[in-house]
Parts: sequence; C-alpha cells; structure tokens
Amino acid sequence: MTLIDKARKGTITAEMKAVAKKEGVAPEFIRDEIASGRLVIPKNVKRKILDVEGIGAGIRTKVNANIGTSKDRCSTKTELAKLAEALDAKTDAVMDLSTGGDLKQIRREILDACPKPLGTVPLYELFVKASNRCSSALKLDVEELFDVIEGQAEEGVDFMTVHCGLNLTALERVRRAKRVTGIVSRGGAFIAAWMATTGMENPLYEHYDRLLKIARKYDVTLSLGDGLRPGCMADASDRPMIQEMIMLGELAEKAVSEGVQTIIEGPGHMPLDEIAPNVKLQKSVCNGAPYYVLGPLVTDVAPGYDHITSAIGGAIAAWAGADFLCYVTPTEHLGLPGPKDVRDGVMASRIAAHAADAVKLKDKSWDREMSAARKALDWEAQERLGIDPAKFDIVKQDLAKKKKTSDKTCSMCGEFCAMEVNSKLGGV
Amino acid sequence: MTLIDKARKGTITAEMKAVAKKEGVAPEFIRDEIASGRLVIPKNVKRKILDVEGIGAGIRTKVNANIGTSKDRCSTKTELAKLAEALDAKTDAVMDLSTGGDLKQIRREILDACPKPLGTVPLYELFVKASNRCSSALKLDVEELFDVIEGQAEEGVDFMTVHCGLNLTALERVRRAKRVTGIVSRGGAFIAAWMATTGMENPLYEHYDRLLKIARKYDVTLSLGDGLRPGCMADASDRPMIQEMIMLGELAEKAVSEGVQTIIEGPGHMPLDEIAPNVKLQKSVCNGAPYYVLGPLVTDVAPGYDHITSAIGGAIAAWAGADFLCYVTPTEHLGLPGPKDVRDGVMASRIAAHAADAVKLKDKSWDREMSAARKALDWEAQERLGIDPAKFDIVKQDLAKKKKTSDKTCSMCGEFCAMEVNSKLGGV
Repeated sequence: MTLIDKARKGTITAEMKAVAKKEGVAPEFIRDEIASGRLVIPKNVKRKILDVEGIGAGIRTKVNANIGTSKDRCSTKTELAKLAEALDAKTDAVMDLSTGGDLKQIRREILDACPKPLGTVPLYELFVKASNRCSSALKLDVEELFDVIEGQAEEGVDFMTVHCGLNLTALERVRRAKRVTGIVSRGGAFIAAWMATTGMENPLYEHYDRLLKIARKYDVTLSLGDGLRPGCMADASDRPMIQEMIMLGELAEKAVSEGVQTIIEGPGHMPLDEIAPNVKLQKSVCNGAPYYVLGPLVTDVAPGYDHITSAIGGAIAAWAGADFLCYVTPTEHLGLPGPKDVRDGVMASRIAAHAADAVKLKDKSWDREMSAARKALDWEAQERLGIDPAKFDIVKQDLAKKKKTSDKTCSMCGEFCAMEVNSKLGGV
Repeated sequence: MTLIDKARKGTITAEMKAVAKKEGVAPEFIRDEIASGRLVIPKNVKRKILDVEGIGAGIRTKVNANIGTSKDRCSTKTELAKLAEALDAKTDAVMDLSTGGDLKQIRREILDACPKPLGTVPLYELFVKASNRCSSALKLDVEELFDVIEGQAEEGVDFMTVHCGLNLTALERVRRAKRVTGIVSRGGAFIAAWMATTGMENPLYEHYDRLLKIARKYDVTLSLGDGLRPGCMADASDRPMIQEMIMLGELAEKAVSEGVQTIIEGPGHMPLDEIAPNVKLQKSVCNGAPYYVLGPLVTDVAPGYDHITSAIGGAIAAWAGADFLCYVTPTEHLGLPGPKDVRDGVMASRIAAHAADAVKLKDKSWDREMSAARKALDWEAQERLGIDPAKFDIVKQDLAKKKKTSDKTCSMCGEFCAMEVNSKLGGV
C-alpha cells in the first residue's frame, strides 16, 4: 500500500505524524491532504529517511537543492561537499542530477549521506548510457528506460522527475510557437528530439501505466516535469507551456487516483506579472497538486545573480501558492555550481520561501523574535535566530575591537544607533 | 527659476532633453511630469552633473547606493573605492551618509568624483557636530540646522533627505503604538528624542518655509524622509507610519506648488502582501510624487542576505509604481559595507528595478536579446549583455580548457546542452 492508499483507509502513518509535528498542524490534516493529492511526503519504501518532509498546501514552503556531476566537472568528493553545504544551509530536499562519472556509485553515496528526500531525473542516466554506448544520446530504448527507472526506484530514490507531458500534441505546439529559446529542459529537449526523429510518441506518456506501476511498487513520488518550461521572458505563458500543463494535470489526476503521490513542475523564466496567475492556473488545472517551480527567474539578463532573480520569482510564486522551490545558484547559465554557490542558492530560496510563508501561513513569529533581539542589541539572540548564523562573524569581530565592552552598537551607526537613541527616549 | 518653474513656463531645458533621450520618451513628457511634481531631475544649480537622471512615473526605475564613513570605520580612500564600485555597477544616484571623520572634506571628494546625482542627510552632520562639541547629539540648534543645510546646498548637494513629517502629531502616534523596533531611522530617532526632551516641534516641520527657501535657491530636490518607517514586519503599515505619510503628502504638495522638486521616502521592512497597497497609498496621498523606498525587506531574519530580501521587496514595489530603489547591502544589520558589498547591493537593486521595468514599461527587449544570444551559445554577446560582464570569467575559463574549440557548451550540461539538442532538431 502507498501512503495515499493508507491515507484513504484513514490510517495516520509515522511519516504523517512526523510531518504534522514539524508543521504544527493536526495529523488528520496531513492525512486528508495526502489522500486528496494536495500534499505529498516523498519517501521510497526502500529508504530510511531520517527527516521526512511534507510538500503541499497549508504547510511550510519547501526548498530543493540540485547537485550532481557533469562530464566536465566530475568529482564525487565535490558532490558530497555540495550535499553537506546544502544540508548545513537547511535545504528540505536534494536532487542528484549527475551526468558524469559512475552515476550509480555517486547516487549511492549521495543516498547514504542524505537524510532528506532525494530526487533524480532518470532520463539523464539513460542518455549517459546511450551516449557512452554509441556517442549519441538520441538513441532511446524503451525497455532500457523502464529498467533505469525501476533500478533507481530499487535503490531508494524518493522522487523522480519524469517528462511525461511532452507528447506529440505538445511537441506540435512548440514547433509552431517560434520560441526564442526553444526547449531548455534537458530531458525535454532529448525526448523531443527523439520524437521528432522517430515520429513516435513519448514513451513516458505512451507507457504511463507502466511508470505508475513502478511508482506504486516503491511509493516513489512522481514529479511531472515540464519539458516545455519557458527558458526566457519571451516564451513564458505561451501555448506549448500551457498545453503541457493541461497534459500534466490529466496525468496527475490519473496517478493520484491510482495511489501515486504526484507533484507538478513549473517555470523557469517568467515576468513578474505572470507568476501568480500561472500558480493559480496550475492549481486549477492540476486539482491542487503540489507545485514545484524552478525559480522562477524574473529576468534573463543577470547571470551570476540568478539566485537573486529566482528568489524574487520564488517569493511571489510561493506567496501565490507554489509549494516547493527548486533553488537556482549564482552560476546558473554559467557553469556547474560549487559548494559556496550551493549554499548561496539554498539561502536565497529559503528567504523566498520564508517571506512567502510569513504571509501565506500568517506566521511572523520568527521575524518578531529576531526584531525584538535587534531592538535589544542582543547579538547572541540575533545570531541564533539568523537564517545563517555564520554571517554574524562580522559583528563579533567588530565588537571584539571596541574599547568600551558596554558598547553593543555595530560599525554602521556606532553612537548614532537608532536603537540606542530609542532606549534613551523610553518606551518608543 | 527652478526646474519646476521652467517646466511650468513651458521651457524644455538641457536636463529634460538629456533625460528624455536616455529614456526614449518625448522631452514634452518629461517637462510636463516635472511640472506636475510626478518626476524629478535632482541637480543642484551649483553642480555640474555629467549624467543627469530622471526619477518618476513612466521612466526606468532608478537605484541609489548609500556610501559614507562611520565613527568605527572612517577612511576617505575606502569611501572613494565604494563610490567607484557603485558607479562601475551602474548605480543611478549616490548618497553620502558619512558620520565619521572630516565630513565636509569627504563630501567634497565624493562630489568631485561622482558624475551622478548626489544626496545627503544633513541631520547627520548636525548630530556629529553636536556630538563633537558636547558629547551629546541630542542638543539640536535650529540656526545651526539651517546653516548645515544651506552649507551643503552651497557645496552642490543635489538631493537631501529631510525628516520633516515626524512632527508632534506623528510622535504621539508612535508613542502609543507599542512598536517592536520603535524608530529605526537615525534622523528620525534623533529628531524624536529632541522633541520628546524639549517638548518642542520638529524644526524641519515648524520652519518648513525656511527649508523650501533654501531648496528653491539651489534647486535642491527634497527627499522627504520617513523617520517612522517600519523597521520590522510587525511594525509595517501601522498608524504612525501612515500618519507620517499623510504629513509628507501635505508637505510635498506645498513644496511642489512652490517649485521645489520633491520625492517621498518609504519602507523599510514590510511583508510581501503590504508592499503594493503601500505604494498605491503613497501615490494617492502624495499626488503621485516619486516614491523612494529602502528595500523594502520582506523578512527580518536574514542578515547577511538583505540585498536579497530587499531585491524581492524592491521588485514588487517598483512593479507597483515605486520609482527609486535605495539599495541594501549584504552587511545591513551587521556593519558598514565594504566595496564588494556595495557592488552586490547595486546589482541586486538593479535586478529588482529591471524585473519591474520589463513589466511596468512593457519593454522586454534586453531580456529577448540576451536570450537569443543564450540560445545561440554566443558567449561574447551574453557577456556584453549581462548585467555584470565580470561574471562571465567562469565560462571563459571553462571554454579555454576544452579540447574541441568548436564546443561552446558550459560545464553545467556539456554534451547534454538543451540548446545544442534544439539546434539538431531544427527550428524548435
């Protein structure tokens, strides 16, 4: 039985209890939301996750960190360092997107070291295999595809991105669309190229039942990938994107009805004013399934700062109802991220998620506590409450240099500190 | 005659022409907006600004970088380095907020080196003088106050923050409000403390006519400071803040009617969902005067990342109609920023401003051009178009290492680059 099956029978599992406790909601709420398909707890039956996380409506917005090798930069050690950074920065989930080196070995080490839900894109392993075999990743073998998916499920992968919605109907729309950046999803681009070459239907769409059977067996959460996600402002909210979203809505309905936990992936690049409408549309078209957005990036012109462009879009998306933010690092569009980029990416996404949650969940207690500490110039409390305590080293060094140990003001204002002046005023 | 006087007489000045050309609008539009008080071009009659900037409705959102010494960190050389970083990062305006060292000397050097509009907070010089004289910045001398203001105007300062709206009525409201962080504006805190101590009215409010006379004489743009801006989520949109905004609206109306260019300062810290309503309220209450916001920061918990918290709020504010974003650096709430922090702060604010302008001004051509270059894997064009070309060093180093010089893919995807696969597809 999958988690959805159990929820529908009225059972409250240990995972549901753990998530309810963390979120400060009733276990019955978590159970009922899982039963409805509006909330998931990604956890493969083969995995022992120490730290389960719920993703969906009515609970904290979650953050995912993508790690993984590429052919150009391929070091398991670096990837484990990136994983450690992501966990230290308090990511809620991790995806291993490796495409270089011994993928199975790297995945096993990451699975062992990650106490959080772990996701993959099985298509990548398939392409790497095909590429190694015949120097063309475009040779897609359907049996091998499902072998790879089942193999990764057997290893314990908790959630998988599967580009099921990019079918021949959607491909036809993208061919007509005259996009500026075409298809920017790697999985989407390869599936599309294979379909265009062979004239055959996307096997993830055609053999969706087979996929669901594997997902049911291991209770793998399906993350229905948006192969046609917009890769620039100009392509956002176009017909191909919305066509695929309709497909994903239908596929999600089928998965949930068969007891398979499902989330929907979203943009990508998107202008500020299209983000909230897009989230509302996804919730409507996909029966309220959890929405997992990549950014969205609100401008195309800022490589080197795309953790910021995506924090802007992510905050607006999460505020509008998106449930899961895939981080974007400063090196997006420039190269594979290193450990520091991973940290910056997680922090930016956590800021976006929290800013939205303060409003969406009507809980500003963390902000209030921090602000009270700030008013009191209580640096120990501020450090403890800060989203990244390591950043308080600046203050500690400055305070250590002060002659008067009673002087708690920072190097910005010194004696002109408004907080100090307030305290002299009494009561303001 | 001030710029407003000239605009009202129908004159199109050289400044108006220069701004119209930069913005791609008709000079008549700039003239009429200046006449109405909805747009300003900060420029002291004593100054030769090489690069004038318009701030207001219908044109690009502008960014300001605060620099300046503190008592703890006081080096003219560092401040000039910070100015150079801010200019290199393409800030539209600079404020010198120095409170340490020889203020007049530092200001002169910054004025000389800055081709953009330069602003100050004259109250700071007053407090530093009072503090040096009698070790209490709370001794406020009205004659000295106006001497300082006129002195700075004579030196050529283009715009000045003046906390005119924090009068006894507003002070009474903040006393009743039980705020979490009280008054967080330095100028505001000192004015309030002086008023509370003496029982007297804020001289900038009481002698507003005298201030207007100086502003008229030098055509200094008044930036009406919000001494009661919220310093945390909990204090946002409270009665003191809105009371002061009403005062600022009245004062702006008077200034504009007397030919003095005026902008209104705004928050500060503010939850996501209050930002757009706040901007709409400011535009209504202040007759559409340009709105100059500090952030807003959308959470209180992220010291070390407040360039990001403020980029989120700044994008939403600018999209809703804010005209001028004061940057916030990563060291906000931790200490005085250094040159790198200045760069990061300007970039984050420029991203927020541009993301908003793409929507507000309906111009996504820059994004489109960048995306076309990205699709073509044209790294030279991407570098040229990037908001920070220096960030492309990563790619250049990676490409230099490649064996095949025809391989233009970055280290993220390599042979699995979606753009490459698209090009094989033909036409998608």
